[in-house]
Amino acid sequence: MGLVQVIALGGVGEIGKNCSVVREDDDIVVVDCGLSFPNEEMLGIDIVVPDFTYLVENKEKVRGVFITHAHEDHVGGLPYLLAQIDVPIYCTEFTQALIKNKLEEKLPHKKIDIRIFKPGDRIAAGKLEVEPVRVTHSIPENCSMAVRTSHGIVFFTGDFKFDFTPVDGKLANITRIGELGQEGVLLLLSDSTNVERPGWGPSERVVSEGLRSVFAEAEGRVLLTTFASNIHRMQQVYEVAAEMGRKVAVVGRRMEQNLDTCERMGYVKIPKGTRIDLRDTKMFPDKQLAILTTGSQGEPMSALVQMSKGEYGRLQVKQGDTLIYSARPIPGNEGAIWRTINRLFNQGCRVIYDSAKPIHVSGHAYQEELKMMINLTRPYYIAPVHGEPRHQFLYNKIAGDMGYPQHRMFTMKDGIPLCMDDTSASFGERVPCGRVLVDNSGTPGVPDEVLRDRNNVANDGIVVITIPVDTTTGQMAGDPEIQARAFSGPEGILNAAYDVLFDALSALSKDELKDTTRVKHDAGDVVKRLIQKRTGLRPLVLPIVVEV
Amino acid sequence: MGLVQVIALGGVGEIGKNCSVVREDDDIVVVDCGLSFPNEEMLGIDIVVPDFTYLVENKEKVRGVFITHAHEDHVGGLPYLLAQIDVPIYCTEFTQALIKNKLEEKLPHKKIDIRIFKPGDRIAAGKLEVEPVRVTHSIPENCSMAVRTSHGIVFFTGDFKFDFTPVDGKLANITRIGELGQEGVLLLLSDSTNVERPGWGPSERVVSEGLRSVFAEAEGRVLLTTFASNIHRMQQVYEVAAEMGRKVAVVGRRMEQNLDTCERMGYVKIPKGTRIDLRDTKMFPDKQLAILTTGSQGEPMSALVQMSKGEYGRLQVKQGDTLIYSARPIPGNEGAIWRTINRLFNQGCRVIYDSAKPIHVSGHAYQEELKMMINLTRPYYIAPVHGEPRHQFLYNKIAGDMGYPQHRMFTMKDGIPLCMDDTSASFGERVPCGRVLVDNSGTPGVPDEVLRDRNNVANDGIVVITIPVDTTTGQMAGDPEIQARAFSGPEGILNAAYDVLFDALSALSKDELKDTTRVKHDAGDVVKRLIQKRTGLRPLVLPIVVEV
Repeated sequence: MGLVQVIALGGVGEIGKNCSVVREDDDIVVVDCGLSFPNEEMLGIDIVVPDFTYLVENKEKVRGVFITHAHEDHVGGLPYLLAQIDVPIYCTEFTQALIKNKLEEKLPHKKIDIRIFKPGDRIAAGKLEVEPVRVTHSIPENCSMAVRTSHGIVFFTGDFKFDFTPVDGKLANITRIGELGQEGVLLLLSDSTNVERPGWGPSERVVSEGLRSVFAEAEGRVLLTTFASNIHRMQQVYEVAAEMGRKVAVVGRRMEQNLDTCERMGYVKIPKGTRIDLRDTKMFPDKQLAILTTGSQGEPMSALVQMSKGEYGRLQVKQGDTLIYSARPIPGNEGAIWRTINRLFNQGCRVIYDSAKPIHVSGHAYQEELKMMINLTRPYYIAPVHGEPRHQFLYNKIAGDMGYPQHRMFTMKDGIPLCMDDTSASFGERVPCGRVLVDNSGTPGVPDEVLRDRNNVANDGIVVITIPVDTTTGQMAGDPEIQARAFSGPEGILNAAYDVLFDALSALSKDELKDTTRVKHDAGDVVKRLIQKRTGLRPLVLPIVVEV
Repeated sequence: MGLVQVIALGGVGEIGKNCSVVREDDDIVVVDCGLSFPNEEMLGIDIVVPDFTYLVENKEKVRGVFITHAHEDHVGGLPYLLAQIDVPIYCTEFTQALIKNKLEEKLPHKKIDIRIFKPGDRIAAGKLEVEPVRVTHSIPENCSMAVRTSHGIVFFTGDFKFDFTPVDGKLANITRIGELGQEGVLLLLSDSTNVERPGWGPSERVVSEGLRSVFAEAEGRVLLTTFASNIHRMQQVYEVAAEMGRKVAVVGRRMEQNLDTCERMGYVKIPKGTRIDLRDTKMFPDKQLAILTTGSQGEPMSALVQMSKGEYGRLQVKQGDTLIYSARPIPGNEGAIWRTINRLFNQGCRVIYDSAKPIHVSGHAYQEELKMMINLTRPYYIAPVHGEPRHQFLYNKIAGDMGYPQHRMFTMKDGIPLCMDDTSASFGERVPCGRVLVDNSGTPGVPDEVLRDRNNVANDGIVVITIPVDTTTGQMAGDPEIQARAFSGPEGILNAAYDVLFDALSALSKDELKDTTRVKHDAGDVVKRLIQKRTGLRPLVLPIVVEV
């Protein structure tokens, strides 16, 4: 019996790009493979995925990637992993339905090996074994993952809450979690996103109440925006709308796709005659209409944002409309979201983004639910995941209050293995790990240098100097030029820069002029220094010697 | 008796750059002259100030700028206004103390005409008259402004709350506000920032309780970060520290300056022996130390952020420290603030950013306080300011609940005059108005085109094409070159671009090559189109013809 190693390739000390590894000897199981969203310093970055080097280097040992649920922070990294190694994906039928098209779109020439499991299955993965257990969350068919090792179970809660009245009626299998606890949980890796919230979170079900009261009060049409993956929310809208005599149309490609898939598979049950096409909304009075739309994150190309600007051809917002903002802002999107909401108000649309009766609830466990999970699993070791350092700190404080001593609680860091055997646990040597930035073209691996240049130009602009040189004679072959873009600064600054440039070039001998490296250095240097001294600005300066 | 016009040059439909105009015939009074902070789309912008064209065009009519209080969103635009026109500034002695140095720094060659008022003074301004009235806020010596016109009083609440136990003991002059209401308020312009919050806001005083309990529980040093202008908060820290037997040191230039000024003028009373120099902290055990620091907005150059990175020479954070985050994030700064807090946790410093007993309270009125202000002033017309459209909407809803009919409530927009006489009110013709962007060099007036280029380069980079042409012969004088910066994209894309560029240039006749505009257009076009087609990226493409 070797060591059991648990390594997060993403998802600890941060919220996003969840990807964890359990390894015992030559067998590796991966749990989740997510993406995260760029922060405001990552200019021109579309998404961020984990660095998969460790998995690539050990590809013959990887038995499978086990997916807890279909949210992007748990599945969005898959195309980038599968582009590098062949490995089977294990997930529920529902998860497959949501991710399959996207994987095939991104990897058209690849045979994707997806294997379906049901909660309660026990899947052999080398000497490891994986057992998904049903838990509740804001998406159907969500699972915790119990990974059986020879030293006990490594239990990933995945994202969870204990919701006793879930929209689809499918309860968490608490009893099974308790049984696994009795069998022996070596390590609990617990969701900690909502550890700052005391008490027990509200059920998804209460949102129906909130929707009902907004629907009842609305003078005209009701619009509702949420995540395209929030199937339960859409189900609730259909039910409340049917009850209140409203028809529902859907706007937004991904939402329509998901809804079609889920309706076909029976995960959404739409009351007869309630769903209508957007084109047919004209046939009904406003009081009998509801509209589901994407755009809850203020995405510039989304229907909602375009509606808020009056630029969406298929639907116009108008006086008397009510929009329900039924989502949470992903950090970083707040500005875009508030701008959208304000624009909607300006068009006479009332936006409900907060209300006495909740119109959105979180899918993550509050403090008492987190304690309940500890109580059920009774793990020997404990480590919060799916949280930033502040969440990890608070989670361990709570576990400490439940009696856990310091040496049985860990604050994991991405890439640092937690190594355990029957008698001890400690951190090992860091494995290759990090963030891979994917740009707007979908190409992963944007280098740090490019980001630095982007920040540089974004702040202070770019100054391009062209210097035509006849390198055979060592003479200038024309006048140098200075052009600036994305650059502001006080009047006359570029003329002053031209003067020092001209003087610097005039001072060079023929031999020095033949040395293009020298010319570039001198030209860049004088211009950069003059601008910085006069203005405090540090534009990116790009000197180009044109050899003729 | 002419029309009374009220024009917001900033500060309605937004939170920030407050600047309002009251005009009757040839007399203009300006209330406040603030700045706002850039949103995440305004790359490389330091601050935003109002467009003062209207005041410049009417400069001989402007009788004075009346400042309610010394927060940046009410005074930060002054240097940019005073650079354009000469006008006296009216403010309290305290406000003057905080703004004078800064104005003199920014306008070294200008004689600044500051005139001190006390609440209750009546200041003639042509045929208008201005009466400042004391109200409570999160800064000392804060005033509402009653502007007397021949049709009644235009009452600016300024930023306010009704705090019955303010830290400095100076209560709002509610009686005077009531008297003005009896005299006749034509228009109430009310703070609406906190209109989403029901009830009555907590007094600044309750923060002392919160501080006391954190101080009592802290194992080691206590650090507290807040705005450098939050004089009351600093007063509270000194009092609680003295009570608990801790010495207080200050880190951060602006905070030290403000504290020195306020101590000298008696606005802060530091218990004897409590203030120590940072250098002397070594002489005391951690349990006897507290430290006040700037950096509450995650400013990269602030002491706190540098401490969180372990890069601040004068003070290191360590295990056992407790930091109290006693401020609110200015929208847009959340990311930087959380990153700072997480780094502090990683260094073993516990950060208290939320607590059962408040460690920060808002300086703005909640719903019941807003109603109280309406009740006291009993205005004929009403208009919410200092709020985004969503706040304006909610404020008018509340006023509606108090019985105001639609035609007496206004949702103002920047630059659109509200014109009133004894019998009616309506919106007039828009005056010149807008936002002026100030870049990192302090130069106002960054053009939109520069911002567009910055966004462009920040997202997708820049591609520079140089084409050496002998314009006398119409021949290429060397090889064209393509250089990219801040650009990523798939491998080989620049080689492919070079190929199409080369082909395009080869296809040009001698006459066409002599036409530099044509060459630039063709070269830029083929490269731009190829990159966009292959990658979806839209870098800024800058073709340069080098004439030799």
